[in-house]
Amino acid sequence: MPQALRIGLLGCGTVGTGVAKILSEKAQELTRITGRPLTLCRVVVRDVTKLRDSVIPVNLITGDPTTLFSEPLDVVVEVAGGIGPIRDIVIKCLESGRDLITANKALLAEWGSEIFEQARKHGRAIGFEAAVAGGIPIIRAISEGMVANRITAILGILNGTSNYILTRMADDGLTYSEALVEAQKMGYAEANPSLDVDGTDAAHKLAILAHLAFGVQPPLESIPRRGINNLDAVDICFASELGYTIKLLAESWNRNGKLAMHVSPVLLKKQAPMAQVRGAYNAVALVGDAVEDTLYYGKGAGMLPTASSIVANLVDIASSRERMVQQSRLLWPKGKNNGPPILPDTDLKSRFYLRLLVPDRPGIMAEVAGILATFKISIASVIQHESTSSPPNRVQMVIMTHEAFASDFRLAVAEIDRRAFAIFPVTHYPVAD
Amino acid sequence: MPQALRIGLLGCGTVGTGVAKILSEKAQELTRITGRPLTLCRVVVRDVTKLRDSVIPVNLITGDPTTLFSEPLDVVVEVAGGIGPIRDIVIKCLESGRDLITANKALLAEWGSEIFEQARKHGRAIGFEAAVAGGIPIIRAISEGMVANRITAILGILNGTSNYILTRMADDGLTYSEALVEAQKMGYAEANPSLDVDGTDAAHKLAILAHLAFGVQPPLESIPRRGINNLDAVDICFASELGYTIKLLAESWNRNGKLAMHVSPVLLKKQAPMAQVRGAYNAVALVGDAVEDTLYYGKGAGMLPTASSIVANLVDIASSRERMVQQSRLLWPKGKNNGPPILPDTDLKSRFYLRLLVPDRPGIMAEVAGILATFKISIASVIQHESTSSPPNRVQMVIMTHEAFASDFRLAVAEIDRRAFAIFPVTHYPVAD
Repeated sequence: MPQALRIGLLGCGTVGTGVAKILSEKAQELTRITGRPLTLCRVVVRDVTKLRDSVIPVNLITGDPTTLFSEPLDVVVEVAGGIGPIRDIVIKCLESGRDLITANKALLAEWGSEIFEQARKHGRAIGFEAAVAGGIPIIRAISEGMVANRITAILGILNGTSNYILTRMADDGLTYSEALVEAQKMGYAEANPSLDVDGTDAAHKLAILAHLAFGVQPPLESIPRRGINNLDAVDICFASELGYTIKLLAESWNRNGKLAMHVSPVLLKKQAPMAQVRGAYNAVALVGDAVEDTLYYGKGAGMLPTASSIVANLVDIASSRERMVQQSRLLWPKGKNNGPPILPDTDLKSRFYLRLLVPDRPGIMAEVAGILATFKISIASVIQHESTSSPPNRVQMVIMTHEAFASDFRLAVAEIDRRAFAIFPVTHYPVAD
Repeated sequence: MPQALRIGLLGCGTVGTGVAKILSEKAQELTRITGRPLTLCRVVVRDVTKLRDSVIPVNLITGDPTTLFSEPLDVVVEVAGGIGPIRDIVIKCLESGRDLITANKALLAEWGSEIFEQARKHGRAIGFEAAVAGGIPIIRAISEGMVANRITAILGILNGTSNYILTRMADDGLTYSEALVEAQKMGYAEANPSLDVDGTDAAHKLAILAHLAFGVQPPLESIPRRGINNLDAVDICFASELGYTIKLLAESWNRNGKLAMHVSPVLLKKQAPMAQVRGAYNAVALVGDAVEDTLYYGKGAGMLPTASSIVANLVDIASSRERMVQQSRLLWPKGKNNGPPILPDTDLKSRFYLRLLVPDRPGIMAEVAGILATFKISIASVIQHESTSSPPNRVQMVIMTHEAFASDFRLAVAEIDRRAFAIFPVTHYPVAD
């Protein structure tokens, strides 16, 4: 019998339990495929008194993380989340000769170069398929399947919680708060839902994909990001009237040797493939110079989809460690940003949606149109319904523009906001082609 | 400098040229990723006098396939297509210690166990990412990404030529013959277009995916298959009127421990994700017990998309040979069908579309409805337009049924075909839920 791959688990919430479940239920098949047993040897948890699923052997549970680098283990699976203390444990595990599998996008996006430096120093492999788009093997698709391609664009729905909320708001008329509570109950939201809905989680994931695809190591603050936490249902309704759906998109593309990237709610044509991505599903579109357009779709979170990616990485380490080590050697080189420079987001061109609440009196449309024209922004379509309210009569004015520079558009918005008729600041979102 | 991976190319048509192009243009990047150069050392062609792209060094070209197993090479890339003589060359390459990469679905589907037996015997690896769905890394997705899953269903648009023809017929009103000629001009059709349009190519690819997913080794004749070569444009129009698109689908799913599989034109709701797959694109939906629904989408054929998958396999062999050998060891075991038994297609349940050309006189609808009722088949909807032609007035009667067993449906069709009013045999297709 060949030697077992000895696994330590750091964290045992939903995903950790899923990993233990798959390792136990599919033990025979996984041994057949890798040629060696995958054996869970240690489970480190924060609260040892908490009741666990029966799939976790009680004698493996401990509250002491030092067991992960003092006991004989081959690989540590980190599914605890968070950064501070976890980063230190993970680095000690690499130092003491363990390979690492992590689902922690924040850790990679913010501390990738420190962690991979340790891996390189100690000849260790790091697998992180589960860190982006749960059940979709997107890391494998970029780093192996598309290895013969220069990637030119990434477009993704990467946050399942946001997409679930947007879907429930658009399809079933729920309010933002109702949909958020529901998403949390369904177990889709991360530990801290604010990172999901403010775009940070999607930006972390975009940073990881952009590193794999373009070599960049963008600090989080260099990725312009807006979440869905300030999105009003009224904009979903107007978008729908115009034939669009609003999705939280994470995008990055190479434009003449510079890299555009941002996370934002974006209006997408209803028939676009990304507009069809509903509920807790994720999707990633990749464009490569050889393969052209590709799209990957699947569950973005949840116990078994995420655990499925972690176990796939365990199989990688059990059967193809050499390759994983080689991959880890090339990733997140310290102090080197091998990618193209990042375009300031003001240089991006896009169509735009804007909405203003204005008094229902003559001349305002002319004034708004005039300001847009001043900044060379051309109007594509307008919606303004008849006012049905009693005085003070105020109406929503919705405008879709033709393509314009974000810098010009912002100046125009600032100018509109300064005018006397502007009751609230203009609401605006980019529109995808 | 580590040792180069020495590559021999068997065949140098569109795809072979694409491989040489990528190896040459991306030499530096590929060396960085694998840690060793990927070097083209020999190119075997049928016609040495033919003018080749300048990316193929003239001194490598030969008409003698024995060079592939007599000269020092590490891996042979087979992109010649066909079976007879190619099978023998490929087996000799494996015997003489070369790893193999092949894009040849017919070879794998029909001779998989012979070829993999040689690979096992000689400790060789076989890569075949390019054999199914060109640019989509679907082999990798099933055998690596979804390794922790029991797969329960596969649904694919696997033949780009057929899908191109169907798209042009549905979207632009081309006839079947016009669209076929166009597809051939675009370079989408295989050497022999009849294998594309009669469903054989899709059945070969389905056999490969079903082997990976379910362990079965179905002989080609056990896969019920119909192509698009007898599809009439009028059925595309009626389907559209009912809210459906017709696609050539390859399907296989586990039903209570038995495997259903078939290739057929199928009516799909227009808003279904598969219905959005246009032109020469392919798509594969996989359902796994852990990850649930996933979908992969990309170019199914063409020079660079297919070459991109071949080069990805070259990188696998250069950097992860051990794992590829282990995978090859488990595939197509000789004389063993490890999968579930295949359901006879008469046991499949489905909704059905049927169309009859009938005389425009009273009583026929009653007669048809009566026959369907006899076989417990319930009608969901009917289209019959007013006749506008001069005598003999004949009209198209189109019926969509509720779910029924294929066996019952066929008996009903046979009974309708026997009646005096039946001018032509009934045209019928299954309808997806």
